[in-house]
Amino acid sequence: MPSEFDLIAQYFTRPAPDGMLGVGDDCALFPVPAGMQVATSKDLLVSGRHFYPDVDPRALGHKSLAVNLSDLGAMGAQPIGCLLGLALPSADAAWLAAFADGFHALAARHGCALIGGDTTRSPQDLVISVTVFGAVAPTRALRRDAARPGDDIWVSGELGAADVAYRLLDGQIPPDATLLAATRRALEWPEPRVALGQALGGIAHAAIDLSDGLVQDLGHILKASAVGARIDYAALPVAAAIAALPEPVRRRAILGGGDVYELCFTAPASARDAVADAARRAGVPVSRIGAIVPEAGIEVREADGRLMEALPGGFDHFGAG
Amino acid sequence: MPSEFDLIAQYFTRPAPDGMLGVGDDCALFPVPAGMQVATSKDLLVSGRHFYPDVDPRALGHKSLAVNLSDLGAMGAQPIGCLLGLALPSADAAWLAAFADGFHALAARHGCALIGGDTTRSPQDLVISVTVFGAVAPTRALRRDAARPGDDIWVSGELGAADVAYRLLDGQIPPDATLLAATRRALEWPEPRVALGQALGGIAHAAIDLSDGLVQDLGHILKASAVGARIDYAALPVAAAIAALPEPVRRRAILGGGDVYELCFTAPASARDAVADAARRAGVPVSRIGAIVPEAGIEVREADGRLMEALPGGFDHFGAG
Repeated sequence: MPSEFDLIAQYFTRPAPDGMLGVGDDCALFPVPAGMQVATSKDLLVSGRHFYPDVDPRALGHKSLAVNLSDLGAMGAQPIGCLLGLALPSADAAWLAAFADGFHALAARHGCALIGGDTTRSPQDLVISVTVFGAVAPTRALRRDAARPGDDIWVSGELGAADVAYRLLDGQIPPDATLLAATRRALEWPEPRVALGQALGGIAHAAIDLSDGLVQDLGHILKASAVGARIDYAALPVAAAIAALPEPVRRRAILGGGDVYELCFTAPASARDAVADAARRAGVPVSRIGAIVPEAGIEVREADGRLMEALPGGFDHFGAG
Repeated sequence: MPSEFDLIAQYFTRPAPDGMLGVGDDCALFPVPAGMQVATSKDLLVSGRHFYPDVDPRALGHKSLAVNLSDLGAMGAQPIGCLLGLALPSADAAWLAAFADGFHALAARHGCALIGGDTTRSPQDLVISVTVFGAVAPTRALRRDAARPGDDIWVSGELGAADVAYRLLDGQIPPDATLLAATRRALEWPEPRVALGQALGGIAHAAIDLSDGLVQDLGHILKASAVGARIDYAALPVAAAIAALPEPVRRRAILGGGDVYELCFTAPASARDAVADAARRAGVPVSRIGAIVPEAGIEVREADGRLMEALPGGFDHFGAG
């Protein structure tokens, strides 16, 4: 079996961008543009909890970085680079090659080179930990505590597909190959909204990505900003693939479904044209779904004006849900 | 059981230092002093491989950060902050409280506040991933590729105790409570040489920490710098606690024993006074153990001038050793 160092060198060592020091020293080194702050985030993905052990390793490499790039997007930051930590129960060259391919391909598209990390053997679980770095001007950072009463609430892309794919694969929804084929990409190949987040700098107030689902993640903005929200259910952008499903399944997927790397953000009503322009420049559709109000809580109104009760919550790794 | 968010809030949320954004947003934000680069490193610690499941959680919290701070020290960087990723098979409040105590106490001593991270449940393995950030002027970074023929080779502190403690706990050395008591602290509470690394900026050429053992880690400097080394075995600083052990045990511990968070560094012979002064300022003893030579390889000479054969190698997580 090749040594740890051989494996790292073979699959994860790439030349560092100019001005950086990459894999192969005690630390990686990178410069930061004058006047910018460093934005950083780190996620853990664990086999059996966040992905199935038999998932396509290329998709897994993509998604491991995508969920972290999504955090940079939700902050309005421009990617600089990333670190990868892998705890592996075994070292399979074909698996590592495909994982590395998926990872590097997304990294290259976003200018987020892999500049360091750590690889080790684990007894049983496969654990992936990525740390990303980006740069953002302090005045353009999209913080959770910046929503203001009167702001519009927006989401990017479409909602619901990832949750339905997850529940199909998990056996919670009866097998349906057509439905799985139409939803699986949303779950396994999420596209982080990095360009949109940067385009919204100076326009949007607060932003978050929907990794835990709309209700829970919007709730984080509301709590941090000490405000509430009114949502127009009919305005939510629903993935076409799930439009014909029974309403309880749709509703849970749209409002409660996590693993959605779309942005939810707020912006003053005076900025509607600017938001539309930013979305066009980023090539991502956005939908205006409601408004920030002074009163705490989330109210979701159906098309007929009725208040929705018992909102589906989000995903809690340690909770019962 | 409290939710993931309650656990994180309770044990790992502390106020962020002035000018930073800490736990609770998509990303943490921190500023970087003008003219400095960011140094960053990330390590994974896995239960059953890097620590025993029943280790004192306070010591584990300390060590999880210490091994990463050691990387900043080996680069000559000043700590800025850190991220913590925890994949836990269960959420035990007493364990988390003690782990957090050990982590935060070391973080506070080094001005390396916890500003973000991720916590999740794992099926079986406990995996800890810490990412640290520091600042270093590009001209003062202690890179592995900077050793030059004629440089002295130095190590900080003492060698051998951590390896003996590990082998006692692992049953490879017959039980000896006195010996364990005298060596265990080196294994479980390593003191990262952050102040020494910074004091050596502008004085030392290359540096590395001895996480994989002297022979293997010095080997990384030699390979990166395309040089070789001559080591004087009698000059190696040996922990008093292991001085009386049989020579094969001592030798393996001193030359091959990993998990030693001392620095090995090279500096021009003209800088001996400056090195001694830096060590005094940092409060860490240093020993001059040999010299860099143009010819590749490591030669270790015993006190009688004989060349040592079959050097003990270092630790390879994926290898047979």
